[in-house]
Amino acid sequence: MADKTAVVLLSGGLDSATVLAYALSKGYKCKALSFDYGQRHGVELASARKVAAFFGITEHVVINIDLKKWGGSALTSDSIAVPDAGQYKDIPPTYVPARNMIFLSFAAAWAEVLGAREIFIGVNSVDYSGYPDCRPQFIKAFEDCASLGTKAADEGWRFSVQAPLQHLTKPEIIKLGVSLGFDYSLTHSCYNPSAEGKACGRCDSCMIRKRGFEEAGIKDPTLYC
Amino acid sequence: MADKTAVVLLSGGLDSATVLAYALSKGYKCKALSFDYGQRHGVELASARKVAAFFGITEHVVINIDLKKWGGSALTSDSIAVPDAGQYKDIPPTYVPARNMIFLSFAAAWAEVLGAREIFIGVNSVDYSGYPDCRPQFIKAFEDCASLGTKAADEGWRFSVQAPLQHLTKPEIIKLGVSLGFDYSLTHSCYNPSAEGKACGRCDSCMIRKRGFEEAGIKDPTLYC
Repeated sequence: MADKTAVVLLSGGLDSATVLAYALSKGYKCKALSFDYGQRHGVELASARKVAAFFGITEHVVINIDLKKWGGSALTSDSIAVPDAGQYKDIPPTYVPARNMIFLSFAAAWAEVLGAREIFIGVNSVDYSGYPDCRPQFIKAFEDCASLGTKAADEGWRFSVQAPLQHLTKPEIIKLGVSLGFDYSLTHSCYNPSAEGKACGRCDSCMIRKRGFEEAGIKDPTLYC
Repeated sequence: MADKTAVVLLSGGLDSATVLAYALSKGYKCKALSFDYGQRHGVELASARKVAAFFGITEHVVINIDLKKWGGSALTSDSIAVPDAGQYKDIPPTYVPARNMIFLSFAAAWAEVLGAREIFIGVNSVDYSGYPDCRPQFIKAFEDCASLGTKAADEGWRFSVQAPLQHLTKPEIIKLGVSLGFDYSLTHSCYNPSAEGKACGRCDSCMIRKRGFEEAGIKDPTLYC
């Protein structure tokens, strides 16, 4: 097994970039994995590439998967609008069915081929949109599932899905990234950007990001419409 | 929720076609899901389409995912040969890392969008190649994972992954399909077909299929090289 190699899910957003900075700071050799899944904010992939370049990641794989085939989310269906922040108490329409399970499954596949046992993901269940696939009980269940459905089952090891931001607030996450020397201007969070890629400033993702910078006392580098 | 709608994973092989026949016989409205994952035996997708047409399935989605990006299997890497049957006591090189987890994750995504709670898969742990993602403990772990990582978690329901062939022998599977009126000449099992799509007759998948027909006392409709 390659020593301390990890697959890091990298969306191009604030959280996953922080996770990559964190994993590198802990000495992991990181392979970055992104998805072009037909997301409305496909511009985030350009950010993912910038973030990977910033950290000198030599292996950054972008997998194409067309989740628009069935839509069902404001991020993968043109017929469902991105709501302004705060309109939903329950799971909002920006939730993409089974997205993190799909992403983690690909990450586990790549990790298995690499001989890596660790996967990093930027999920957070404090300042988040209420998505079920961001919660610790899901992450734990995924570890169990991946460890039973791969060679791990016969070879006596387990996958470890590391979610170092799980219990941090957004300002804590931003402070962590800044302390590690990261430049958040490279990231993109908005679900509903303009044609030029400017953030709407109104969606849940923008509001959580904005408030995070405010509460961290750090200047928000985002270009808003 | 749509009544008795199910997503059925359909590879084009013998098992998944039998599962589709079975699910239809139980009154499920079936949506078929196949994957073009860069498999060496991509010809199986033509079989998947024939099988879906045979059963009059109106919604058959084929998802493109490029597992050749990392290979690691004789089915997704040109540099790993398909071995003749019986060479491996442990997991053979035709094992594709995390394949069923990836497939089931997509199936759960589509099911969630459809409002369906049931997914059918043709895994079998009797006459099989020893793949860990064909075993009942993995299937159960996947149900847990999918139920925690989707709206099921908040809405109080669970995904059910039905694997009706799990404990059947290959001849039992073939007899089941024949009893349901299915024509196995539409299916493809070989991992290493000729350019014209004929079965090699030597790989694990061919040997299991051949023996299944022999033991069932049913004429094998497969065209071998």
